[in-house]
Amino acid sequence: MPQYRITLAYDGTDFEGWQLQGRGGTVRTVQGVVEQALARLAGGGRVAVVAAGRTDTGVHAQGQVASFELPRGMASPDLLRALNGLLPPDVRVLEAAPAPEGFHARRSARSKQYRYVLDTGSVQLPSRRRFAAHVPFRLDRARVEAAAALYLGRRDFASLASAGGSVRTTVRTVTRSEVGWEEDSLTYVVEADGFLRRMVRGLVGGLVAVGRGAASVDDLARALLARDRRAWPAPAPACGLTLVRVEYPEPGGGVLR
Amino acid sequence: MPQYRITLAYDGTDFEGWQLQGRGGTVRTVQGVVEQALARLAGGGRVAVVAAGRTDTGVHAQGQVASFELPRGMASPDLLRALNGLLPPDVRVLEAAPAPEGFHARRSARSKQYRYVLDTGSVQLPSRRRFAAHVPFRLDRARVEAAAALYLGRRDFASLASAGGSVRTTVRTVTRSEVGWEEDSLTYVVEADGFLRRMVRGLVGGLVAVGRGAASVDDLARALLARDRRAWPAPAPACGLTLVRVEYPEPGGGVLR
Repeated sequence: MPQYRITLAYDGTDFEGWQLQGRGGTVRTVQGVVEQALARLAGGGRVAVVAAGRTDTGVHAQGQVASFELPRGMASPDLLRALNGLLPPDVRVLEAAPAPEGFHARRSARSKQYRYVLDTGSVQLPSRRRFAAHVPFRLDRARVEAAAALYLGRRDFASLASAGGSVRTTVRTVTRSEVGWEEDSLTYVVEADGFLRRMVRGLVGGLVAVGRGAASVDDLARALLARDRRAWPAPAPACGLTLVRVEYPEPGGGVLR
Repeated sequence: MPQYRITLAYDGTDFEGWQLQGRGGTVRTVQGVVEQALARLAGGGRVAVVAAGRTDTGVHAQGQVASFELPRGMASPDLLRALNGLLPPDVRVLEAAPAPEGFHARRSARSKQYRYVLDTGSVQLPSRRRFAAHVPFRLDRARVEAAAALYLGRRDFASLASAGGSVRTTVRTVTRSEVGWEEDSLTYVVEADGFLRRMVRGLVGGLVAVGRGAASVDDLARALLARDRRAWPAPAPACGLTLVRVEYPEPGGGVLR
């Protein structure tokens, strides 16, 4: 059957995350609405969709990648248009393309990039409240940057693993961990070969704890080495987080974005 | 009684505009929620609030100014904090200050600035849909800028007046009318000594009609001179519009923002 990959953007505010929950669909999930739209396109049968990142409740995407098979082939521009016609306005297909045989949006992914936006002024503009968390504290720039640098490299992130997670390994390689500063706002960009569940929110929780002086950079370094969830500061809220991009190795050896 | 002025930001999406409608408040308006919060602060009696701009349903604000009297004086930082504690999250008080005797947020205003954001790509990112209108057409830059220049100066905007409006004069002086361009997006900023109801949405409707080739710049110039609403292109949607700033003459002759 013909394989496809689509790039999705969504406002996660009104979704209980990506993943389909239970049967019947009483819970609104992104996977649920995408599969519903594809089932209509495919003439009724279920079309199972796999996403690169199973984003949590309230987490957004700007470059989520999903893969699926259709019973019959369809031109990519038609697929894009038809899906956007069927999807609710808080989910949009930005790109659609045929995928190579055996492509799997999650297993084939080489790296992912997330962005976290934090408003630090005393009052948050209502226009920002869906896509930025509000932490009304002055954060120390040098300390936040020292904490962000701690995350770089191949590390065991067991201290940031969620309870009940069942991953083979908690070791991940973080290749980018950068903080951008604006007046009363901070944008954190992190890239890795993979992320544990809630890991980015945990990383940001660490930045906030250090930035406001609740923990020192050394405390955070020790908490990372402890491989113990209880040692780590509280995770940052979901609303500030967006899955920005997923990269795949190209058949020729290059990178497919 | 002590007079106050506050600067307000709100996400207009879930409001039926600024102005209180009828009695009892079955309709959610910004004035309604602000007066409700002030009544609680004032111990129960109604506190009538006047706004600089009576924004329409779905229109946002980043620098709306409102004035009112309180039965008893209150320190400005306390007023700001107390109001933000009582208001819903889609309305925030950014500033609070004592106002001079006789200050009236609407009648004392010297000029207002509005911003309109228009996304012109084929697909709009869900993260932008609350604060930007989506017009999926390529707009001709030179033509849009020529249209924006038409609006400058002291003009009779009768062609942009809403039906049922009861203003004394439809003459306004536009002091700024500028278009900023980004990839797949356009930001229009307009400043005037005052605006007729729905005037900014009408001005943007004119820019879009000319930009996509539905009307020439000359057609638009003629429609403006016609002083006839039926001659003017359809107004742009409310969601792209934000009241950015209101300016007042300072007692000393300067400008109070």
